[in-house]
Amino acid sequence: MNEILDQIRAIVGADHVATGAAIHQDDTHDECLTVTPVRPAGVVRPGTTAEVAAVLRCCNEAGVTVTARGAGSGLSGACVGVPDGLVMAFDRMAEVIRIDVADQMAVVQPGITLAALDDALAPYDLVYPVEPGEPSATVGGTVATNAGGMRAVRYGVTRQHVVGLQMVLASGTVLRSGGRLAKLSTGYDLTQLVVGSEGTLALVTEVTIRLQPRPKARATILAPFADLPTLAAAIPAVTGSGVDPLMLEYLDVLSMTGVTQAAGIDLAVDPAVGTRTNAYLIVALQSRSSEHLQDDVELTGAILTNHGALDVYVLSPRAGADLVTARERAFFAARSAGADDIVDVVVPRSAMSDLLLEAASLGAASGSLVTGCGHAGDGNIHLSIFQPNSQRRQDLIHQIFRHALDAGGAISGEHGLGRAKRDAFLALADPNHLALLDQIKAVFDPRGILGPGVGPARDSRRAEAAPGVSAGTDVGPGGDAQRHDANRHLAGLAGATGEVAP
Amino acid sequence: MNEILDQIRAIVGADHVATGAAIHQDDTHDECLTVTPVRPAGVVRPGTTAEVAAVLRCCNEAGVTVTARGAGSGLSGACVGVPDGLVMAFDRMAEVIRIDVADQMAVVQPGITLAALDDALAPYDLVYPVEPGEPSATVGGTVATNAGGMRAVRYGVTRQHVVGLQMVLASGTVLRSGGRLAKLSTGYDLTQLVVGSEGTLALVTEVTIRLQPRPKARATILAPFADLPTLAAAIPAVTGSGVDPLMLEYLDVLSMTGVTQAAGIDLAVDPAVGTRTNAYLIVALQSRSSEHLQDDVELTGAILTNHGALDVYVLSPRAGADLVTARERAFFAARSAGADDIVDVVVPRSAMSDLLLEAASLGAASGSLVTGCGHAGDGNIHLSIFQPNSQRRQDLIHQIFRHALDAGGAISGEHGLGRAKRDAFLALADPNHLALLDQIKAVFDPRGILGPGVGPARDSRRAEAAPGVSAGTDVGPGGDAQRHDANRHLAGLAGATGEVAP
Repeated sequence: MNEILDQIRAIVGADHVATGAAIHQDDTHDECLTVTPVRPAGVVRPGTTAEVAAVLRCCNEAGVTVTARGAGSGLSGACVGVPDGLVMAFDRMAEVIRIDVADQMAVVQPGITLAALDDALAPYDLVYPVEPGEPSATVGGTVATNAGGMRAVRYGVTRQHVVGLQMVLASGTVLRSGGRLAKLSTGYDLTQLVVGSEGTLALVTEVTIRLQPRPKARATILAPFADLPTLAAAIPAVTGSGVDPLMLEYLDVLSMTGVTQAAGIDLAVDPAVGTRTNAYLIVALQSRSSEHLQDDVELTGAILTNHGALDVYVLSPRAGADLVTARERAFFAARSAGADDIVDVVVPRSAMSDLLLEAASLGAASGSLVTGCGHAGDGNIHLSIFQPNSQRRQDLIHQIFRHALDAGGAISGEHGLGRAKRDAFLALADPNHLALLDQIKAVFDPRGILGPGVGPARDSRRAEAAPGVSAGTDVGPGGDAQRHDANRHLAGLAGATGEVAP
Repeated sequence: MNEILDQIRAIVGADHVATGAAIHQDDTHDECLTVTPVRPAGVVRPGTTAEVAAVLRCCNEAGVTVTARGAGSGLSGACVGVPDGLVMAFDRMAEVIRIDVADQMAVVQPGITLAALDDALAPYDLVYPVEPGEPSATVGGTVATNAGGMRAVRYGVTRQHVVGLQMVLASGTVLRSGGRLAKLSTGYDLTQLVVGSEGTLALVTEVTIRLQPRPKARATILAPFADLPTLAAAIPAVTGSGVDPLMLEYLDVLSMTGVTQAAGIDLAVDPAVGTRTNAYLIVALQSRSSEHLQDDVELTGAILTNHGALDVYVLSPRAGADLVTARERAFFAARSAGADDIVDVVVPRSAMSDLLLEAASLGAASGSLVTGCGHAGDGNIHLSIFQPNSQRRQDLIHQIFRHALDAGGAISGEHGLGRAKRDAFLALADPNHLALLDQIKAVFDPRGILGPGVGPARDSRRAEAAPGVSAGTDVGPGGDAQRHDANRHLAGLAGATGEVAP
């Protein structure tokens, strides 16, 4: 390892390689509550794509692993390294390379934070609409996790805004995919394959993103509801109306209490309403003109009232901004309140309230407290689990995962698998699906040096040796993270094919 | 082959396998002007996913190729089979499996046409916004090509609406990816990898798509311009204003004459304006309310006037619909007029007018007529090439491709590579990029039975034998279809790494 570190020092400069006690505590963890901090063998901070390529070439030849790291604001441990591997941090590659106003696109380095990017775009009246709730997050980190956030109900998730990448494969090969192009139909989309791959297929060194006009007018509506099913039933009425909400966030009453207390906000909800409230809906609206916005506010208010809101409050711009910021900080409020884990699950939007009720019920049965908030427009829920006993907590979370999968959902909507959910994913996914993921990993990273222990693929060398995806059979329902039940439909298939699959 | 055909007859029923003279002429071609029709060894029409799986298993074992076919409305020859292989047509798998109003999603079989899907969604006030201009196209075909179309400037292309797939690998393995989920972060996105893969990675047997509220109010504006650069410069002003246009289409004056004559439309443009016009912009606007729409029409009209439009016509709903339909039929108008090829290229939007001027100039130099129309909001251009001499036409198209690539573009925005552009892609793309595509193909289809001669990957068996992606080096600019110039930056990289790449 010392020899490799010397080679890497020669590439990036000795100042940009930390080892031993010189490794900063910040570089050993992210914000995930359940992944233990790890001090890697070294932390490398390259300054250019060529340096990234040269470092990877060294590491690939030597079989030394590399874990990519952005701001460390992730919630799955994906950027936490291993003791005998390197962490590659991208904070020295944080430039805006170009802003194309006519194209409404920008090209940036991966280490730029969302806050710095927003500052750079503001003078052009443009915005990058991905807002995962943490402005210190880097673009590279959001690409790695396919980050979503509160505005996704209107604008979609990260992959819908990334149109091009420069990437470095494990071998040191530098590739470009896509470009400043609104459309492309020239073969397999490597951009989309690498987005969401958590640093396990290639390291991203440039990102081309689509931008949107910067909003002119914005309003925030708060609607208390007596129960979650009523709240959930109001969601499609809002999204179907054509008002195109910017945010559709729900918080159960405990979460709302937590975030408002942490932020020092008084919601000023009528006490007679407050005592009947079990869930809150926050609707942010945005329009190019204040007149249109006013119409949208009135329509949305009417829809919510007609769909069972106990009351509808149109917040002042200041109060609205404060409440949205407080909601963004929900993770920190839950952590401060003593949550033992924060779980990200996603289900079809129509299945959200059932999942939440089931999670509360499962929590009660296990002696755990489960509270939650989330992106109600997307069926994407963040549950705070208060259960200090690790085994009981794991059992509860596993039950919640199974319920989500049975409802057609998945075990992560936006935080990623990282280290925290890798085992659950491997245990629950269709083996044929996993075999394909392993082989894709082996194509990009045959020696398995990128992101050890992170993400959906198993050891590359094992995949390399595999004879190919076996001809199994599963025509049952499910998603990326579906529970495997290979024999479920075999009878039907055998009838159609005249043979029983192995 | 006869033995295989008998096996397949036993799977799908003898009525659903055509051979020899029983193969309908329609199943031998698509709409591409340059790909020769081919009569395959057989055309198979499966009725279920299980049948697709069983047929592929047979074919994979026997090494018989399978070319997937939707409606045959494509423009790249991707659905044209080979003489010793099978074509698999999906018109028997054309059902809507479910429409989830609360989720704003639908699950459909691949053979359903866009027209039939629209009929099914209309009662729910929902719309699938992908409109490639041919309502007889199938959902499966649009997934295969990642189809775009006129509404993409607002809603994005096919991949932005497909959230889940059921797919059958060459081996017969049935997999699901994604689901009725607005967000997902559980590993490599197989859905996105298969969208746009032109039937060469897996055959899609179910598609889960996002839906949008059905538009309430729509208006169409026609703006003549004296020249293309002025027209192009108006585009970012419109998109940056926040009016969020549904369509932003340009037609040069010859194309406009062609499409309006073919449709029997009189544009009623003031003759004094018409004589000065060299390019037309069509802007379609859409809003949830007629009041908002009226505001958007006024704002857009003012922007166009301020940006050099010779005049601005707000068309009657009937005239607007007729003009949009006529524009949709531009391909057929150009074909009727005797065009020898229709070429789909995409560049950064800001590079569009330069490319068009260059194409016209290259055309003149080669004694060819080049006219065009396209999706001005996306930088996606369709050029009609009138040049009967095949070699001169190919040379001209190659020059246009090179110009597009040099401008950061690609050789297909939405039609795909198919057979028509495969050779150009293989000749122009970065070899390291191609090696990766080959290996991905080999993961999904190790025996190379899917889509022979179609798309971006070379023969699977060759890729299988390859030792892995070589550690080449290219940090230069470019896109998926970039021109390869591997030594361009070697000097700089050598300086950084202390070694020269092989």
